[in-house]
Amino acid sequence: MVKTNPGRFFEDYTVGETIHHAVPRTVSGGERALYHALYPARHALYSSDEFARACGLLASPLDDIAAFHVVFGKTVPDISLNAIANLGYAEGRWLKPIYPGDTLRSSSEVIGLKQNSNGKSGVVWVRTKGTNQRDEVVLDYVRWVMVRKRNVDARSPDTFIPELKPALEVGDLVVPEGLTFDNYDYTLAGEPHRWSDYDIGETIDHVDGVTVEEAEHMMATRLWQNTAKVHFDATLREDGQRLIYGGHVISMARTLSFNGLANAQIVAGLNAGAHANPCYSGDTIKAWSEVLDKAETNIPGVGALRLRLVATKGGAPFTLKGEDGKYLPHVMLDLDYWALMPM
Amino acid sequence: MVKTNPGRFFEDYTVGETIHHAVPRTVSGGERALYHALYPARHALYSSDEFARACGLLASPLDDIAAFHVVFGKTVPDISLNAIANLGYAEGRWLKPIYPGDTLRSSSEVIGLKQNSNGKSGVVWVRTKGTNQRDEVVLDYVRWVMVRKRNVDARSPDTFIPELKPALEVGDLVVPEGLTFDNYDYTLAGEPHRWSDYDIGETIDHVDGVTVEEAEHMMATRLWQNTAKVHFDATLREDGQRLIYGGHVISMARTLSFNGLANAQIVAGLNAGAHANPCYSGDTIKAWSEVLDKAETNIPGVGALRLRLVATKGGAPFTLKGEDGKYLPHVMLDLDYWALMPM
Amino acid sequence: MVKTNPGRFFEDYTVGETIHHAVPRTVSGGERALYHALYPARHALYSSDEFARACGLLASPLDDIAAFHVVFGKTVPDISLNAIANLGYAEGRWLKPIYPGDTLRSSSEVIGLKQNSNGKSGVVWVRTKGTNQRDEVVLDYVRWVMVRKRNVDARSPDTFIPELKPALEVGDLVVPEGLTFDNYDYTLAGEPHRWSDYDIGETIDHVDGVTVEEAEHMMATRLWQNTAKVHFDATLREDGQRLIYGGHVISMARTLSFNGLANAQIVAGLNAGAHANPCYSGDTIKAWSEVLDKAETNIPGVGALRLRLVATKGGAPFTLKGEDGKYLPHVMLDLDYWALMPM
Repeated sequence: MVKTNPGRFFEDYTVGETIHHAVPRTVSGGERALYHALYPARHALYSSDEFARACGLLASPLDDIAAFHVVFGKTVPDISLNAIANLGYAEGRWLKPIYPGDTLRSSSEVIGLKQNSNGKSGVVWVRTKGTNQRDEVVLDYVRWVMVRKRNVDARSPDTFIPELKPALEVGDLVVPEGLTFDNYDYTLAGEPHRWSDYDIGETIDHVDGVTVEEAEHMMATRLWQNTAKVHFDATLREDGQRLIYGGHVISMARTLSFNGLANAQIVAGLNAGAHANPCYSGDTIKAWSEVLDKAETNIPGVGALRLRLVATKGGAPFTLKGEDGKYLPHVMLDLDYWALMPM
Repeated sequence: MVKTNPGRFFEDYTVGETIHHAVPRTVSGGERALYHALYPARHALYSSDEFARACGLLASPLDDIAAFHVVFGKTVPDISLNAIANLGYAEGRWLKPIYPGDTLRSSSEVIGLKQNSNGKSGVVWVRTKGTNQRDEVVLDYVRWVMVRKRNVDARSPDTFIPELKPALEVGDLVVPEGLTFDNYDYTLAGEPHRWSDYDIGETIDHVDGVTVEEAEHMMATRLWQNTAKVHFDATLREDGQRLIYGGHVISMARTLSFNGLANAQIVAGLNAGAHANPCYSGDTIKAWSEVLDKAETNIPGVGALRLRLVATKGGAPFTLKGEDGKYLPHVMLDLDYWALMPM
Repeated sequence: MVKTNPGRFFEDYTVGETIHHAVPRTVSGGERALYHALYPARHALYSSDEFARACGLLASPLDDIAAFHVVFGKTVPDISLNAIANLGYAEGRWLKPIYPGDTLRSSSEVIGLKQNSNGKSGVVWVRTKGTNQRDEVVLDYVRWVMVRKRNVDARSPDTFIPELKPALEVGDLVVPEGLTFDNYDYTLAGEPHRWSDYDIGETIDHVDGVTVEEAEHMMATRLWQNTAKVHFDATLREDGQRLIYGGHVISMARTLSFNGLANAQIVAGLNAGAHANPCYSGDTIKAWSEVLDKAETNIPGVGALRLRLVATKGGAPFTLKGEDGKYLPHVMLDLDYWALMPM
């Protein structure tokens, strides 16, 4: 009997089934320190317990994108070990802050299946939930991946494509319990720009660049217990490069966006995301943002900004797609998310 | 008066003396997070406080091999600074879990000496103990190293070769106090295979590979305060490579072995170990295991598996030695240990 | 309106103004573990809670140089984003130990200005204070940097050069409250040499070398939330190298100096410092020290040693400047500090 995990193949999924993912994880100040060592993370709410308490939270939570990585990482052995491509994200919502000492686990419900016309692979949609030690859901999101079939002759499942919102509405977002920006200190936060200073359509070049290294992306990816081989084993590709986990690019871009969006403290919703082109060691990641929408939440003083966050390696800022409608080769990430910030 | 530590030479050791090693260390969640960033560590007992409590422990302890590194690192300035080779390990036992906040220190008793026939070096056997802040021994093991003489004319000590068990018996192993697998959650642990599913002689290819980088092994080795120059100073070798600490290979192999041995949660005994060939940056480490023995412990439901763990860089799995009885060049580590797992 | 921070230029500073720097930070065991992974840090007071308590402290504090980095990092966006060179340090004093859970913020008072004769840049002197969550100043120091002008036609400010002590006197140093070396354990600390064993003029070659890697210095520099572009973006220089943060060299040299100065536990004063030549990935850092002065503090048993700490890349130890009075090309750092140690 083979003891190692071969991963699931397309024909192994059934719409409606729930997969409970392995290896729960307790987070501590160690994960936060590492997140700050691996990325230029500077949002004050995630850096200072005092700042977080002044905003009504118990302490400084784990960075929202780090929380996403922890929850996501657990799904890899069950969802994407045999994936050909990570196709998209939708309806991602951060529901509870995660504090040092919290223990996270993940589960995914299969909510859609569609075999590809070539008969060799298919698309699997899952809704993944991250849960803490009190059985509270802290995060949920939909992602879909293209997965190989083990046996091309396996019967094709009935096609079921889930209906997904193109973007969350502000009413879908959950403002952390107790959050207030009434005593918000813009000087300590690093920038004076509040929600009312941003206009729909405005673009921001985040200016700074980071050249990425093999050791860093592997440490980051392992920290989230993401086991996908391509990130670690240089012998899998002829050029000896490792494909960098797309989440590493998300974290780098989000933290670079501090410069211009220092007060967009909280990532509350993930509307969509595309890993447009791969990232390799030696690439220099830069980022730019576009304000896609603005809305007021139901909490006084807490505004929501819908942002496009683009990570690039070279190329001019604010260029995204070519005339053919395809992402330009220097675009690595096109992420669409909601952030909460003082009004 | 020279202030720097020149290390001890062969003629500086006396059978029966105890050396108290410097620099006690308090461990925290930071060490655990770093261990998970540096290695693909996924054993649930060392990842989740909740999982560990369900198994009767106070919280998730420091990974057993990390504990070994902390204790071992302290011995380097006194035992192996002038070592030519790390020859072997025996009778290693993990006696107490180590929790965040615990402070460890190490001491070694010299238990054997044998000068080499060339008169230039000799073999030193030490029994090293790791002790916590309550003076409880948390780990002890024997290792022997070949150490240079300062002065080739120094008098040869009487040869004394300690009697060491070729392998610990199950009765030698210490099951952590309170440990129970009665509520063990195989889904959260990651694999369904229990003790009874493994057969003596069974081999497991752990499949995954990790290409190692200079920055990572140096961070790991420093974290354990291991000061051996060859791991850090690229000018010591003509090819500019640094020799990777053998313990880095042990940790990589043990954590890779999760894939196929996810329930072999606890390393309880170290029977033997050989660093068969050196590891350098750029090598891709893979691992395979062989079940050498099985036994029941005195705790109901807790089984012990004696495992050979082999780390390789290239080559076919399950190949170990050539016709000449020597390790094949792609074999880096041959470790013989006892693990505890649910029956 | 441009949202990103362009940094301040020479004409933006006014003598007497105080700049409150952004992004307060709470430190935990994670920062300590990372400091020990990034540098060969072995001073027992900063490694073991038990050792620190035996010396009268509450627990093992954050390494003094790490504390400096946290406070310094916050000043970069306001002080040195457009700096051409970091010219010097003076009157640095560590006033309170920093424990896990403490939150640090920084502010700087502009204490001097002098436009360069070329009219394109000028020197800015600031006195920076690090403050904890109880509004206690934990560290203060003066540094001066050469900063570009935005507009060469901007009016030159009145020249004001602050009077700075060439070196702190022992009476300026603050011994941490409660510190005692009465129960000091030299074996656990790693060396027998006490204050009385060091002579003024004595030099110590710290012997060990560390070859530095891009991934490591970037992780270190980010951990302190230092955002200076040159440390991260390889596209800024033609050779694709990143300039290593001078503080990385300070930490490496100070931790290497354990070997010969293991009992110089506490950095209490910073008299002066020059980053004599740049450091790049691949350089092998070694260090040597010279005892510049000795003094007794007002606490019985606590002595102060004034030390020159030199970091090199190649070259012979104890060589510092050429016949022209300039630093030799292999000298990267010349630091002058006071350390506290048992008498």
